[in-house]
Amino acid sequence: MKEVPKEKALTYIEPGPVVLVTTRDAERNNVMTISWTMAIDFEQHIVLTTGSWNHSFATMMDTGECVVCIPPASMLETAVRIGTVSGADVDKFEMFGLEALAAATVRAPLIAGCIACLECRVTDYIADYGFVVLHVTRVVEDPDCPDKRLIHAVGDGRFIADGETFDCRALMACKLPPGL
Amino acid sequence: MKEVPKEKALTYIEPGPVVLVTTRDAERNNVMTISWTMAIDFEQHIVLTTGSWNHSFATMMDTGECVVCIPPASMLETAVRIGTVSGADVDKFEMFGLEALAAATVRAPLIAGCIACLECRVTDYIADYGFVVLHVTRVVEDPDCPDKRLIHAVGDGRFIADGETFDCRALMACKLPPGL
Repeated sequence: MKEVPKEKALTYIEPGPVVLVTTRDAERNNVMTISWTMAIDFEQHIVLTTGSWNHSFATMMDTGECVVCIPPASMLETAVRIGTVSGADVDKFEMFGLEALAAATVRAPLIAGCIACLECRVTDYIADYGFVVLHVTRVVEDPDCPDKRLIHAVGDGRFIADGETFDCRALMACKLPPGL
Repeated sequence: MKEVPKEKALTYIEPGPVVLVTTRDAERNNVMTISWTMAIDFEQHIVLTTGSWNHSFATMMDTGECVVCIPPASMLETAVRIGTVSGADVDKFEMFGLEALAAATVRAPLIAGCIACLECRVTDYIADYGFVVLHVTRVVEDPDCPDKRLIHAVGDGRFIADGETFDCRALMACKLPPGL
């Protein structure tokens, strides 16, 4: 995993992918699958919707940190299975053969094989809606990841991988954020 | 455009597409392109991030309503161009040859040619972050739309259309929301 400018965080959240959110409590690593996320500014803040029904939630609040990992389409089945079991019952890293790599700015782990990982600090929590506001402190990418297709959850049990890419930079030059 | 169960609203927001948000003030229709959206529950609430820098924002707050339209990949160039001009300066429906169709539960219009349109009421606004919380009051789909590929914004001027679909309903049967 190779560090890249933090401005790239936006480019992994704005497309709306399924993400794997890791946490680490005193005992072990945990991970949850989340598809309710949103980019919210150009200063590396993002938000995800979760709550106490997720075992990872208490750890994320207690430690004030997590890593938002972006799995490739080739990891879809693992991402779905992660979402069907609870870290209260099992060690998901062991169960799914995930390799935890050390992050640099948080204690929660990166996940080997992901396209990119965003190390994050919790900056706010809006309890009425379960919005966890995160600030991305470091972005790493796997330049050798053989599959760069993001996964999008339809919400009904179907998932869609990235297809054709279109370059509209010339059309929207006036609107492009700084650093991208 | 054909009405479908409101539960389908989730399936158009959770994948993270670019959306066209219409409003209607006393004088005319307007539309803005938004890619910062998020599904937040199974009761047809969604959120988008915007603010006073968008001309549509004041109308959305004043009228308390909008329509979130889902453009197909074939409308990408129009969606990008809509995002580069302001309704303060031009009539975007006229400029881009958009056909406004009547909604049933709000005065803001549907846009012909979109895959689906979600008629919405504003239920909350979290000013610190520009989060506009919407409740979807009606969902319509165009069953004859020849292109059903959603558009995902990368955030750097590139856009990605939906590619391959994977059915994981059997894997996550225990987690599927009611009605989908």
